[in-house]
Amino acid sequence: MVQDEEDMPTLFEQEIYEQPVVLARLLTDGRTRAEEIAGRITAFAPHAVFIAARGTSDNAARYAQYLFGAHNRLAVGLTTPSLFTIYDAPPEYRGMLVIGISQSGQSPDIVTVIETARMQGALTLAITNDTASPLATAAELCFPLHAGVERAVAATKTYTTQLTALAMLSTALAGAPDLWNDLMRLPDAVREAIQRNTGLAERTAAWAAGQRFVVIGRGFNYATAFEIALKLQETCYVVAEPFSSADFLHGPIAMIDSDFPIVLVAPTGRTFADLTGLLPLLTERNASVSIITDATADPAVLGSAVTLPMAPGTPEWLSPIPAVVAGQLFALAQATLRGYDPDQPRGLTKITETY
Amino acid sequence: MVQDEEDMPTLFEQEIYEQPVVLARLLTDGRTRAEEIAGRITAFAPHAVFIAARGTSDNAARYAQYLFGAHNRLAVGLTTPSLFTIYDAPPEYRGMLVIGISQSGQSPDIVTVIETARMQGALTLAITNDTASPLATAAELCFPLHAGVERAVAATKTYTTQLTALAMLSTALAGAPDLWNDLMRLPDAVREAIQRNTGLAERTAAWAAGQRFVVIGRGFNYATAFEIALKLQETCYVVAEPFSSADFLHGPIAMIDSDFPIVLVAPTGRTFADLTGLLPLLTERNASVSIITDATADPAVLGSAVTLPMAPGTPEWLSPIPAVVAGQLFALAQATLRGYDPDQPRGLTKITETY
Repeated sequence: MVQDEEDMPTLFEQEIYEQPVVLARLLTDGRTRAEEIAGRITAFAPHAVFIAARGTSDNAARYAQYLFGAHNRLAVGLTTPSLFTIYDAPPEYRGMLVIGISQSGQSPDIVTVIETARMQGALTLAITNDTASPLATAAELCFPLHAGVERAVAATKTYTTQLTALAMLSTALAGAPDLWNDLMRLPDAVREAIQRNTGLAERTAAWAAGQRFVVIGRGFNYATAFEIALKLQETCYVVAEPFSSADFLHGPIAMIDSDFPIVLVAPTGRTFADLTGLLPLLTERNASVSIITDATADPAVLGSAVTLPMAPGTPEWLSPIPAVVAGQLFALAQATLRGYDPDQPRGLTKITETY
Repeated sequence: MVQDEEDMPTLFEQEIYEQPVVLARLLTDGRTRAEEIAGRITAFAPHAVFIAARGTSDNAARYAQYLFGAHNRLAVGLTTPSLFTIYDAPPEYRGMLVIGISQSGQSPDIVTVIETARMQGALTLAITNDTASPLATAAELCFPLHAGVERAVAATKTYTTQLTALAMLSTALAGAPDLWNDLMRLPDAVREAIQRNTGLAERTAAWAAGQRFVVIGRGFNYATAFEIALKLQETCYVVAEPFSSADFLHGPIAMIDSDFPIVLVAPTGRTFADLTGLLPLLTERNASVSIITDATADPAVLGSAVTLPMAPGTPEWLSPIPAVVAGQLFALAQATLRGYDPDQPRGLTKITETY
């Protein structure tokens, strides 16, 4: 029995593996609701969008900045919840779409932002896994994630469903049938990312001594860099700092020396040249680079990095979903190599109440 | 002669020491211009503000999010320059105030954001040290920093002048004479921060082996945490990650173990309780905490951290300026202890052109 328990996958691992099924359910069950909400947003015609979120959900908000910008021409900013809670001096959000994103829907500061914005005359939307939560109740509109209970402390399936929900809303707003076809292929892309990155511990053993990581992405995958860094922090207790490739060149590159562990998020697309353009600079410094990409045979990649492969064929705007799954499996492999239990992160609880 | 050279203060140190004079000049020479620009902004009545910046200037933009929110009720978001440059899919900024912040005014992506926003019908403003730069030319309005040439690669005086310029604009927008009085006391507050934190190397020798730092701030001083982390990265080649105290509890606290070096930015004000509330959690984990504060005799602080003292009397909304100066001197002390020359950061140049 003891052996069985040891061989049992962790909750973190189980929930990583659940993602293809969970995403397929959201895509099927949520489309009508996404289209209803898009209709309300279009009628409201917001000046801009502001998003309130913390932790993993804040990374989903970062994805929305690029997605709603590129596909819907919407200007998107992230809110500053402490103006509402600590300073009692909220900015004016009348005429804006204000979105609260929270797995549990419990975080009091996010709820306060939504309540205040709604009173000011903003259109408010909750994206949450719990339709009975304070956040769902506070907002005028609610888009449920249908992700099922998430038991691991480090979020996985709720992050990918948050991204998918945002992608569904953006696609409904754009009214683009082609993009819906792309979306429907997501569960398969995630399934392939899981298959190609299972048993990663052996291939990434060289990173297991690293106490400092840098994770670099840009554009749609800027969010992916943040989320992979957060998973490494939560499960491996390392300092993992996310950067855009542009900001990285403005100072932080100075800290890279021999064997420095770096994860590049570089799927095919408009940021690929920018990300792979860093490889010679990193190689020059003898950094240890792993790269999440579908362009595994590209000459820019071959030989200069260990690849965490994605299946080809996912368009760039959806690549953050299979890319982060590869990153989740990288964090899992690193935690395993270090002898840590990802289900028991030191000092963390599933619901963190911040004000 | 060799000895003279070794004893000569670095450019980084010289420019830290210049700050009281440079800020006094901006406050005197810039007030009329700040009031003119505020008049234009008030007449335009923007729906919201979006700011384009990179590196140190991006940290100034973070300060503006809190300041314009708390004092002017303006919703402020940070732009995503790659939507303009890499994706060629800019969001719609008509009706917005769009501000570009750049010391050199050279960064092509920031210039592109301002050019595009101006064509879309946004009100555009450049905050820069070079009034002949492409950024100054691209924007409808320009607020010059009067900081003089900055020669050190790691920015110091241009950051504190950027914050001061933003504080002057906000105060002019609010039309509040009391706040101008607070502003005029800034050069003395910075002078005192320098005096109280000179010779810091001896008191912070315990941090000199640290390769990973966490810097925590919140609200007005969220920006300060980012900027101090960036100085540590640029001058000491460490991974230094900034957090809001709220986000820190949502995951990253798991990585803190014995002797982990942490800098808390905790001046007196509304976030003080939030920041010092972390001290028991950090002490429990035997972390090594240094704290930037004017409340050096507060029971919450005494005995649990090494203090980097600020003079009392600076209101919270201006505290990021003396607080970051204490952080600059901390970075200088750490670089000195490690034998690094802060004027020669590996692989950095003063002007970084990103697209």
